Amino acid sequence: MRRTTSPEVLLRLHRQAGVPLRAQLEGQLREAIRGGRLRPGVQLPSTRVLAADLGLSRGLVVAAYEQLLAEGYLTAHSGSATRVAGREAEPARATAVGAEPAPPQWRYDFRPGVPDAALFPRRAWLTSLRRVLASPSDAVLGYPDARGPEQARTALAAYLNRVRGTAARADRIVMCTGFTQGLRLVSRALHRRGVAAIGIEDPCHAAHRAAILSTGLEVIPIPVDDRGLRVERLESSGAGAVFVTPAHQYPTGAVLAPERRAAVLDWAARTGALVIEDDYDAEYRYDREPIGTLQGLAPDRVVLAGSVSKTLAPALRVGWLVLPADLAPEVAALKYEEDLGSPALDQLAYADFLDRGELDRHLRRTRLSYRRRRDSLVTALQRHLPGLRVRGVAAGLHLMVELSPGASETEVVAAAGRHSVRVYGVQTHRAREQGPPALLLGYGRLGSAAIAEGVTRLAAVLA
Amino acid sequence: MRRTTSPEVLLRLHRQAGVPLRAQLEGQLREAIRGGRLRPGVQLPSTRVLAADLGLSRGLVVAAYEQLLAEGYLTAHSGSATRVAGREAEPARATAVGAEPAPPQWRYDFRPGVPDAALFPRRAWLTSLRRVLASPSDAVLGYPDARGPEQARTALAAYLNRVRGTAARADRIVMCTGFTQGLRLVSRALHRRGVAAIGIEDPCHAAHRAAILSTGLEVIPIPVDDRGLRVERLESSGAGAVFVTPAHQYPTGAVLAPERRAAVLDWAARTGALVIEDDYDAEYRYDREPIGTLQGLAPDRVVLAGSVSKTLAPALRVGWLVLPADLAPEVAALKYEEDLGSPALDQLAYADFLDRGELDRHLRRTRLSYRRRRDSLVTALQRHLPGLRVRGVAAGLHLMVELSPGASETEVVAAAGRHSVRVYGVQTHRAREQGPPALLLGYGRLGSAAIAEGVTRLAAVLA
Repeated sequence: MRRTTSPEVLLRLHRQAGVPLRAQLEGQLREAIRGGRLRPGVQLPSTRVLAADLGLSRGLVVAAYEQLLAEGYLTAHSGSATRVAGREAEPARATAVGAEPAPPQWRYDFRPGVPDAALFPRRAWLTSLRRVLASPSDAVLGYPDARGPEQARTALAAYLNRVRGTAARADRIVMCTGFTQGLRLVSRALHRRGVAAIGIEDPCHAAHRAAILSTGLEVIPIPVDDRGLRVERLESSGAGAVFVTPAHQYPTGAVLAPERRAAVLDWAARTGALVIEDDYDAEYRYDREPIGTLQGLAPDRVVLAGSVSKTLAPALRVGWLVLPADLAPEVAALKYEEDLGSPALDQLAYADFLDRGELDRHLRRTRLSYRRRRDSLVTALQRHLPGLRVRGVAAGLHLMVELSPGASETEVVAAAGRHSVRVYGVQTHRAREQGPPALLLGYGRLGSAAIAEGVTRLAAVLA
Repeated sequence: MRRTTSPEVLLRLHRQAGVPLRAQLEGQLREAIRGGRLRPGVQLPSTRVLAADLGLSRGLVVAAYEQLLAEGYLTAHSGSATRVAGREAEPARATAVGAEPAPPQWRYDFRPGVPDAALFPRRAWLTSLRRVLASPSDAVLGYPDARGPEQARTALAAYLNRVRGTAARADRIVMCTGFTQGLRLVSRALHRRGVAAIGIEDPCHAAHRAAILSTGLEVIPIPVDDRGLRVERLESSGAGAVFVTPAHQYPTGAVLAPERRAAVLDWAARTGALVIEDDYDAEYRYDREPIGTLQGLAPDRVVLAGSVSKTLAPALRVGWLVLPADLAPEVAALKYEEDLGSPALDQLAYADFLDRGELDRHLRRTRLSYRRRRDSLVTALQRHLPGLRVRGVAAGLHLMVELSPGASETEVVAAAGRHSVRVYGVQTHRAREQGPPALLLGYGRLGSAAIAEGVTRLAAVLA
């Protein structure tokens, strides 16, 4: 089938203006081209279509196009469309506000917490999108349920119950645009309930601390050690909730010890507080048994928050909250108020992806890749930097390397950068606690050879 | 290629527990099935994979599976996978909080402002998704620019400049999750700048009024007549901004008169106020020339807000703001704070869809369909309800029918509902102004025959 392309162009003729229509048409096209509204290379409507649109004779439009061709504003080749002439200028560079840093100037970027885009299962994801779009249901395309389509929440609950040991139900899930929005939604709901402050791990991802603060809640930093959050400090803190990463503390990599898991749930039950559980990369574990969620133990006291940002890709922006029964309606109402709901097609594609076992397949495959990279990183650190303590190696997509006590994170990061190695200091994630200077090394996006070379260079910098 | 499916299941064995491992495995599987964590029909991992995962001998896992098969917890047929036995229970019905109303009980639903899902260009949209996923760029999958990928903003600016007469630049666009989020982002930014109140049209979509109020801003209702917003009332209102629908007032369908367009921009320039322009269904116009945006006339005083909810489908949740230079960084920062950015794949797919001229094609096709439906509705109203005044017929996806002064909207809506006709009262969109009772009749989702029958029934109700 040959498809006729008839681009839309905003033109408006004034029949009472006393200016001939052809002159008006030419003038408006000229002005639109000169002013940049019509960019070089843009295709104009055919003379037939434009004449019909504007209620003009076709001859008049032909004459106007010929005039502009003669003036050099337009180009046409026999058999092809009429287009705006000239070469396209470079689009103005966007200023980076709320933007990613510019494309990597680093050859060895140890960014933590980002999976490898090259491992993204593009074909399987596209299949899920195709299957969803082929569904005859109008619900796929209309105004969404603000919590996400029921079908998507049902599939998600089944997956989380099976793999993460949750006690999730579709009607207590609110899907959202990534983890950060979920954390803000819960924080807003707590704020409305009169909660003044929320306990956070110290260190804790700086962006998450900022997200909580942006809702008007205060944060109370609670120290973290090798066994995770020091729960006994919650008792006197006055916090009405706590935000924890029990399966894999960020950034230290500690696992919340069994007695502390019990203690945090006991604290929540005694004080009526809420536990917000960030299950951010629980699916990636290498040397230890999987750790189920706190939510599965106390679904009425725990909010589980998760996303596909570590397992699949951050750009998908698919996230969720598994909520206690009494909190689910409030959070759903806030989600509706904020944006009416996240894109339903993506949520349904994720459900299809889960239901077909594609995530299981993907995790089995990528877990092997990441384990190899982790091994390469640990081996390289042992060889080139044997004196430094390495933490959090058993799981996740990053580990932490403690520097010698006198070292300056800032200087090390800057010096490594000069050798095209990007590493990340931990200090930015600390609130009150002073810990040893340390670096976060993510191995999600680097191959084994790059990891080895990056560590060699880092060792040279530290020497 | 035969793909082996190995679903993930959370199981955790305790080697020091004094309980035989096989008994632990059986017990945990039994408990997971009884408790609903493993739903009927769920496939278990193969014995080989599970044995490797748990560090057990394969024989032990086979024995455990056989025991559970014998007990009826599992089923297996030769050559296929082992699954959890039993029939799946109905998933609990979700309670409708922030949710769409239950699937239509109405045969004739005149819901305004919703396009026909059957007209959605599924194939072309899928092609755009495929093209984006085929791109080798990592940027497609990593953490997004909170404003949307530059490529998407560039394509959007070019489209809006060409078709809507804007003066848009990629670096002043913030893409977001639909129109409502955009309106809230701008309202939040104004609130932070010390603006106390924003003028709104009266009537104005109730959801938009609520979205503004939710940010802490007050609203000042300004009356609307046949020529749109009564701009002279802004002067004494004290509003620091105004929210308008100049191309097609919602819900009355009025077009903002030329002298009022000039007046509102003049007011904004004199007082330093901001104009928020909702361009919600400007692409659908039938009997009049297109009307360019206010933003194109005063890009430093006007925020243009738009989405694909009317042109393509609300479920896509692709929206945008075209902002003045000084406001763009603030709004981008708020967007980053709220959710780090909307799904990049959808935004890039929309850009590809624009660049390939697919939206132009789609609009030309659907405009004809909607025009026919509009004609059917107008004809039916003339025939069956000749006494009622009809407004806003020249454009959009709905029109407004004024009832006789004594009529009760609520009663008419309820009575029509009893005849399976769903119509919508306008009163809910009024703030202060008392106008005549009226109905909103959307024709986006109904074919011509359904429209005729719906109006016939409505006339019977009103008789």
